[in-house]
Amino acid sequence: MSSQFEPRDPDFKSRVTQSFSEQMVMQTINASLLVVEAGRVEIELPYQRELTQQDGFIHAGISSTVMDSACGYAAFTLMPAEARILTIEFKINLLAPAAGDHFRAIGKVRKSGRSVCVAEAELYASLDGSERLVSTMTGTLMALYPQPAS
Amino acid sequence: MSSQFEPRDPDFKSRVTQSFSEQMVMQTINASLLVVEAGRVEIELPYQRELTQQDGFIHAGISSTVMDSACGYAAFTLMPAEARILTIEFKINLLAPAAGDHFRAIGKVRKSGRSVCVAEAELYASLDGSERLVSTMTGTLMALYPQPAS
Amino acid sequence: MSSQFEPRDPDFKSRVTQSFSEQMVMQTINASLLVVEAGRVEIELPYQRELTQQDGFIHAGISSTVMDSACGYAAFTLMPAEARILTIEFKINLLAPAAGDHFRAIGKVRKSGRSVCVAEAELYASLDGSERLVSTMTGTLMALYPQPAS
Amino acid sequence: MSSQFEPRDPDFKSRVTQSFSEQMVMQTINASLLVVEAGRVEIELPYQRELTQQDGFIHAGISSTVMDSACGYAAFTLMPAEARILTIEFKINLLAPAAGDHFRAIGKVRKSGRSVCVAEAELYASLDGSERLVSTMTGTLMALYPQPAS
Repeated sequence: MSSQFEPRDPDFKSRVTQSFSEQMVMQTINASLLVVEAGRVEIELPYQRELTQQDGFIHAGISSTVMDSACGYAAFTLMPAEARILTIEFKINLLAPAAGDHFRAIGKVRKSGRSVCVAEAELYASLDGSERLVSTMTGTLMALYPQPAS
Repeated sequence: MSSQFEPRDPDFKSRVTQSFSEQMVMQTINASLLVVEAGRVEIELPYQRELTQQDGFIHAGISSTVMDSACGYAAFTLMPAEARILTIEFKINLLAPAAGDHFRAIGKVRKSGRSVCVAEAELYASLDGSERLVSTMTGTLMALYPQPAS
Repeated sequence: MSSQFEPRDPDFKSRVTQSFSEQMVMQTINASLLVVEAGRVEIELPYQRELTQQDGFIHAGISSTVMDSACGYAAFTLMPAEARILTIEFKINLLAPAAGDHFRAIGKVRKSGRSVCVAEAELYASLDGSERLVSTMTGTLMALYPQPAS
Repeated sequence: MSSQFEPRDPDFKSRVTQSFSEQMVMQTINASLLVVEAGRVEIELPYQRELTQQDGFIHAGISSTVMDSACGYAAFTLMPAEARILTIEFKINLLAPAAGDHFRAIGKVRKSGRSVCVAEAELYASLDGSERLVSTMTGTLMALYPQPAS
């Protein structure tokens, strides 16, 4: 899927890596950036008891945290260098309990416009070497451009 | 809104309080349960640098975490004692940056059926004593009942 | 709710009425505009066998049609005269079967920004003189402004 | 994708075809069932001026109508013969104006459980022989089983 997109800023990887390192919450939950391609980003999250709901599964909000960043950075890879990006809404479906040793969120751009971008993410749980899809997200992002001085 | 609902378990407050204390992620992010009424729950979250995205605002996934729990526990207040509850999907709209000293998620039941429940949440940011709506959620929850032994 | 909004174009009612009359689908399904206020619009739909799903209830897509237009025109009331408006996404929850003699969709603006607007709608079914909430919508709309000639 | 699913009722095609013929709205908008496979359904809609919004594009609610039925029937293919199916919520993203000669909604099951099913749809617009993705849907459906007589 990523190959269909032409990045407008050849230096997109360093922009994404820099911004990810500034998301303090990613360090707090020990998430790391696995893959950054044009239109596609992967984020990994190890299982941590500190991030669970009452049954010992990763809380849906934490799943949302990594999926939202995966969507946002996937969109960001296709933006021109001067743009900032903002999530305006997302929807998540929880298909199975987020049980596993670690988790991988894959974010992909579905449509990249000048101002509006739609991205999708999948969250996979790994347990004993096999992966299972546990949730999906669709998000809408908006690009913000610096206003010309008047 | 809460007055329209009749709880099926008079002991719903202690069930919610107990379950909330078992959501490890709530302790990790320092969220606390402010209000538990029939069909309505409030959760408070103090601003913490550790929970922010790249611009210093609370990450949308963390906003989702407290709103999802507010929706889930609002639904849980109306369930019979033997039921468990599961979020199956939610959607969040981000209306303004989550900037503030602390945040208050208010979850309310919109429709409570035997198996499906729809709840809504609002997240308010407090800054210098005034509150501002920063995001909204609609979530669908499912009640699970113990299966009769066969 | 409507009173909190200040319309930017005093002539918003005639703009909405004109645009509604150009939505051919509204005539096809016999929907009519009941109320147009700043930030709030109501649309009425009579029950018609031609619009039903397999159980004889109004199809969820037809419910979406009137709710989406209610959201869109509620947002449109607050736009400046030169703006066009575009739905970019919506989510609908179906709380009860759309059974009744007629239906009323109420759309209200939740947040009105220069470019992004969030609106919500409720659909009520009337049966034998009493109304019942049957579905809810949250939608995101975008305002488009004419580009300056260069 | 369809090959991964094992239908529980070998006669699923005739059940879907029968139910589709009972959705009066499908006849009203001239939609037809193109493909019925295990976990996958396609519905076609010709462009009709009677179904448009103010700019002459197919109204988003009509797009929802065919996508919702595509999701619902995709889920229905995997249900046992005695089950009924109900959409409980869906979300749609509008990626491009629904302009074209005709439209094709492809619904696919993402997860099929005993009671909850998640399906996704894509809507393609055909213009002069080439197809373009114009919107996407994610929907949650619930299976209803006959209650045992007590």
